[in-house]
Amino acid sequence: MFPVQITSLGTYLPARRVANAELAESLGIAPDWITRATGVRERRYASDSETSLVMGAAAARDALANAGLAATDLDAIVGASAGPHQTIPCTAALLARELGLPDGRAACFDLNATCLSFPFALHTVAAQIATGIYRTILIVSSERASRSLNPQERESAVLFGDAAAAAIVAPTPSGRASAIWGGRFATHPSGADHTVVLGGGTGYHPNDPATTPEMNLFRMDGPRIYRQGARLIGPFLDEFLRAIGWTRVEIAALVAHQASRHAIDLLTDRLGFTPAQVVNNLPLRGNCVAASLPLALAEAVATDRIRRGDRVLLGGSGAGLTLGALALTY
Amino acid sequence: MFPVQITSLGTYLPARRVANAELAESLGIAPDWITRATGVRERRYASDSETSLVMGAAAARDALANAGLAATDLDAIVGASAGPHQTIPCTAALLARELGLPDGRAACFDLNATCLSFPFALHTVAAQIATGIYRTILIVSSERASRSLNPQERESAVLFGDAAAAAIVAPTPSGRASAIWGGRFATHPSGADHTVVLGGGTGYHPNDPATTPEMNLFRMDGPRIYRQGARLIGPFLDEFLRAIGWTRVEIAALVAHQASRHAIDLLTDRLGFTPAQVVNNLPLRGNCVAASLPLALAEAVATDRIRRGDRVLLGGSGAGLTLGALALTY
Repeated sequence: MFPVQITSLGTYLPARRVANAELAESLGIAPDWITRATGVRERRYASDSETSLVMGAAAARDALANAGLAATDLDAIVGASAGPHQTIPCTAALLARELGLPDGRAACFDLNATCLSFPFALHTVAAQIATGIYRTILIVSSERASRSLNPQERESAVLFGDAAAAAIVAPTPSGRASAIWGGRFATHPSGADHTVVLGGGTGYHPNDPATTPEMNLFRMDGPRIYRQGARLIGPFLDEFLRAIGWTRVEIAALVAHQASRHAIDLLTDRLGFTPAQVVNNLPLRGNCVAASLPLALAEAVATDRIRRGDRVLLGGSGAGLTLGALALTY
Repeated sequence: MFPVQITSLGTYLPARRVANAELAESLGIAPDWITRATGVRERRYASDSETSLVMGAAAARDALANAGLAATDLDAIVGASAGPHQTIPCTAALLARELGLPDGRAACFDLNATCLSFPFALHTVAAQIATGIYRTILIVSSERASRSLNPQERESAVLFGDAAAAAIVAPTPSGRASAIWGGRFATHPSGADHTVVLGGGTGYHPNDPATTPEMNLFRMDGPRIYRQGARLIGPFLDEFLRAIGWTRVEIAALVAHQASRHAIDLLTDRLGFTPAQVVNNLPLRGNCVAASLPLALAEAVATDRIRRGDRVLLGGSGAGLTLGALALTY
């Protein structure tokens, strides 16, 4: 158990709301089908000026303001997104510039565990803080998924949205119960092809004539992800909760990666959680890739759905295919 | 100080050697100029079948064999490269598949601090191992820089090479002096534009008509990097060595990021290290981005240049601009 807390959270949502009616018209499908298939009624799309850096820095400023801290108080910045702003340098270094950090102040790095990047980063920085490497760390997840939607694959084209969320993580002050109890992440390489963006790297280089435009877009096999995830997540969560000594009833809130309506429904239908426990922002946000989970967490804290002292379980499945869970007292 | 050791190292070099004469002819420059400007006489270029996954997995198998371990002994895999194989999923998950890891065995994530990704990952996993999160971790740095060379920018086009290197990191067995003493990393956002690959992410998306082919290639301002790095690295190293209580004479080997001839010369000319201390594989390997440092370290260990019990300093500067140093007893 790490004596480490989430000091504050912050968010940024692009102004532009995209309702199902708009997508239905452009994709030639029924609005009802979108709601039924994905659970999403509306999502946000970033404008050209709302880059993942602009969104990430806005969420970071919100988190800093909520903590009463300045950017100069940060010892490290973690870019915890599935997709970078550019290949080099890492997104965290570009965020540092966007936030106006002075030279030499913070260590900047990106940590990528695709959709689970935020809880994975939280677990990692808990160890860094507990061992005294850093004291105050900013984690930023910012995703501009709308840049990589394939209109030919309507299941994923209607699922994703853009957003950014950020958290300040620091040692727990004395007298407060906040803690990171532990985390567990397990990759299942047999599912590595279930969710892909093939392009962007050296495997399918943007300048390679063999790289097609489709390779630079999301390709998801929703039914296979669901089947594999649904089979594995129950035993995975049971084992994790046993290991940290939690029972389901002690959990005030379960904040899962907002992968899809079916993934969220699974939590109550088959995994033994009550609807009151499950935080769900999918209908108005869509699946915002790595920003989904911290955004849902931040919104739940902002609306007092999660309060100091509450036991909170973060988790879900992401591309990899990776299952993850992290237990914390907020 | 973390009671954590590098259990073993592994490497992979593409078969194809590219001498200065070959590049000089294709770029229309003098072979002498390449040696003088960069210190590189030869570098390796990957073939089409030597993807960063193929190279990374080969280096990982080499490290596993050197440790007498199987892939199933790994609790986590860290992809520690500046450039990914593809955008989603993370490179570590793809490496897990390449290595034949069974489902659910290891946690896979990428950690990116550009050229300093390896020492940054080593510092991070030391904290993860010391706090009991993982026991045996594989770090893989694999770079296919030759995919992103701009023939119009000859200074960088002749500098880079392809390679992969890997390390197994684990708790130090009793009776051995191996340890990670500490690390320090500091980003200087004013240098964020000195080394870039703008493309590959959502900022300059591969499918955006405004993204030019040049944006998907390295763009480096060597003189500015050198000036900023040379001004900062002395005080940075002095402060780091003071903090961990090391003097220069105690250091058996200094393994720096093989950024350029000028960066390596600086270590002996102005930073107080002797030529015997400085490990230098630049002439035959080139700058292999994040793979450079672990490759130089692995080659120094393989040739008994570094032995168990030696104090070793890793460090240098990378895109960001980030300075870094990590002290270990091998």
